[in-house]
Amino acid sequence: MKFNRPTVDVGKAQDLLLQHLTPLEAEIVPLLESFGRTLAEDVHATHPVPHFVKSGMDGYAVRAVDIQGATPETPALLKVNEVIPCGSLPTKPIGPGEAARIMTGAMLPEGADTVVMFEMTEERQEAGGDEGFEKKESLKYAVVFKEVPLGRNVSQIGEEMAAGELLLERGRTIQAGEAALLATFGFSEVPVVRRPRVAIFTTGSELLAVDAPLQPGKIRNSNRYMLTSLVQSASAQVVSLQTVPDDIEQARALVCDWMNRVDVVLTSGGVSVGDFDIMADLLDNWDGQVLFQKIEMRPGSVTSAAARGNAFLCALSGNPGACFVGFELFVRPVLHGLQARRQVLPTAFTAVLRGDYPKANIYARYLRGQTLLHEGKVYVEPVGKDQSSVTVSIKDSDCLIVIPPGGGVRDGEMVTALRLPSQPYA
Amino acid sequence: MKFNRPTVDVGKAQDLLLQHLTPLEAEIVPLLESFGRTLAEDVHATHPVPHFVKSGMDGYAVRAVDIQGATPETPALLKVNEVIPCGSLPTKPIGPGEAARIMTGAMLPEGADTVVMFEMTEERQEAGGDEGFEKKESLKYAVVFKEVPLGRNVSQIGEEMAAGELLLERGRTIQAGEAALLATFGFSEVPVVRRPRVAIFTTGSELLAVDAPLQPGKIRNSNRYMLTSLVQSASAQVVSLQTVPDDIEQARALVCDWMNRVDVVLTSGGVSVGDFDIMADLLDNWDGQVLFQKIEMRPGSVTSAAARGNAFLCALSGNPGACFVGFELFVRPVLHGLQARRQVLPTAFTAVLRGDYPKANIYARYLRGQTLLHEGKVYVEPVGKDQSSVTVSIKDSDCLIVIPPGGGVRDGEMVTALRLPSQPYA
Repeated sequence: MKFNRPTVDVGKAQDLLLQHLTPLEAEIVPLLESFGRTLAEDVHATHPVPHFVKSGMDGYAVRAVDIQGATPETPALLKVNEVIPCGSLPTKPIGPGEAARIMTGAMLPEGADTVVMFEMTEERQEAGGDEGFEKKESLKYAVVFKEVPLGRNVSQIGEEMAAGELLLERGRTIQAGEAALLATFGFSEVPVVRRPRVAIFTTGSELLAVDAPLQPGKIRNSNRYMLTSLVQSASAQVVSLQTVPDDIEQARALVCDWMNRVDVVLTSGGVSVGDFDIMADLLDNWDGQVLFQKIEMRPGSVTSAAARGNAFLCALSGNPGACFVGFELFVRPVLHGLQARRQVLPTAFTAVLRGDYPKANIYARYLRGQTLLHEGKVYVEPVGKDQSSVTVSIKDSDCLIVIPPGGGVRDGEMVTALRLPSQPYA
Repeated sequence: MKFNRPTVDVGKAQDLLLQHLTPLEAEIVPLLESFGRTLAEDVHATHPVPHFVKSGMDGYAVRAVDIQGATPETPALLKVNEVIPCGSLPTKPIGPGEAARIMTGAMLPEGADTVVMFEMTEERQEAGGDEGFEKKESLKYAVVFKEVPLGRNVSQIGEEMAAGELLLERGRTIQAGEAALLATFGFSEVPVVRRPRVAIFTTGSELLAVDAPLQPGKIRNSNRYMLTSLVQSASAQVVSLQTVPDDIEQARALVCDWMNRVDVVLTSGGVSVGDFDIMADLLDNWDGQVLFQKIEMRPGSVTSAAARGNAFLCALSGNPGACFVGFELFVRPVLHGLQARRQVLPTAFTAVLRGDYPKANIYARYLRGQTLLHEGKVYVEPVGKDQSSVTVSIKDSDCLIVIPPGGGVRDGEMVTALRLPSQPYA
């Protein structure tokens, strides 16, 4: 079974995973703890925004008709009724020849329809004497030097958001803009999808602990840390980090036990055709569904996946480069899908290839690449050493360049690339 | 002072902040807790990678000369000395006509120079009888059906990384690829720059708590949550969330107290020319350096900043849109700079504008926009409602489109845009 496994292409492998997937249940968390989580319900505006007629400036609330034709030479003089700080309610309506001093965000008094910003006005502590207004210490006047059109600097009810409007769709990741909207509508607690629980198991008797001294023939376990970082970047939770025992029955017991306790068991190594490839052996006698054991791709053709109940076993290559690519193509979609995210598969875009990739491929190749935006064009460029065993180029990649099966691609040709959300530009 | 403040442009304002800035000290954290943090020291390879000659495949370690000319019709027959699992050391050198069964990642035995993958071989439990080898139960032979070139499937010492090579520069954010390298070189603990400590203070008597019922003339405090999310996205730590009192002396006492306790006091609101704009009043009598109080930009021209000792006061507009833009242009650079990040200012790129922006501007305008990669081109498009008061479009923006001062920009023209790391695509 290790040799001559049936192959599927990348799209089919992703389909097999997603078809098996049931989104996780919702839970309620405080707004301050919801950042990075996935919204579990649609959020509609429960009231219009603004919910009252509002000044957009610090200035005077006026009737536009009263300042028509005002110029520095022929200003309009208005009696100031009151001062309306933001958050306070106006107490007096604005009649002809009247104004209210009003702050940004404050409610417009009845009768006012327009706000003139302070910079176009002057305040006077006096009455003309013959306007017939009652004279007292506190009486103030606004001199307006410029006509502004009706409605200027005023936000009408519902101008930004109408009551009932769909604001946030379920499946959105909660970031700054979402957080502001949730707060606006009073969500001190937010329904989010539970984080997937993930166990990360590494296989291979060549692996040393990160704090162990180097030994001939052995290497330190780097996939454990790379995978933990990747799982966390998908808003999932790592609940166990362990080493798979060399003994097949012990390995089976460990994996099966954790399949009952987590949503995803993620392994690295042991999937190939070697004599000690324990994950391959384990999948050859799997008590559940084997989804795939060989994919028409490089690197990581031996990437495998299985399911039992609602839990997934994602068995990645132990080669760091192949492990990384396998995570982004298959594991992240599972973790996003479990969270019912809107974007489950990696986002594809077309770009101009920089540099030749002459190598012929039987299978599609997913090259670690870097995106360059330059003068309105988008380029992708391989980041250098790209063998499946290579770790050093992972840090520099923000996309995977897809080289289709066949005779290679030349500099300047269009290629498809997949964005890597774990590795934002810069 | 509130009116007629001296203005600076955006670049100058950023310079004033960065000139005042001293990067924070380093601290040591466990590797598993270092993700998202900023590396405080350069990391060099302390040994070559690989540090031993290694098989890149599951197969047979051979001498290339012994399989020269092998074909399915004229295979080479090699005596198998031993099996070398990954992590074990070879015990026997490979002499003429000999091979070792070897697993991916295992150390090559002395004498071997090439690995033939299993798929091109067959194993036989027999000797020809006349080769003169000792006959016993365990004796096995490898039949090789294909010649492969010298060195194929073998990684030489230092092939991926040379000893002493600079691998990670200080100032890098630790993500999956960095984590893998740190683990490879035994960093169970990592020197990272301390997280900036930030106090977020909101001003405005119109602000309701997020769980309070709506009232006429009042709105819920959304900036607090938006800013907390943004600060966290810059790997900084929010240590206090408070409301600034309306009384100027109380406000001053609060801000000054926290300037001694945190790296950045971040406020929203109260910076404009209104009667109750307490941050503006506070900065008019500031016991320290006022860096700027007016910027030639829209939205958020009243964005202000001051310093005292090593601490910053960043006073953003209370309008959500202006608050968001002010954070990305001025506060994130401060938080990145304090962490000695390689990328401090927002990354600029040129893109094709989609849609007209005919509005004339005295000041440069920073429009919330969306990046579209299509057929090798990069487009940016405003995300809709863009007034400084508007919250609803923040969630949809992944860049700020820079509209220079002047007569507007037409569809299809090139513009500069700034990437927003808080809002990754998709």
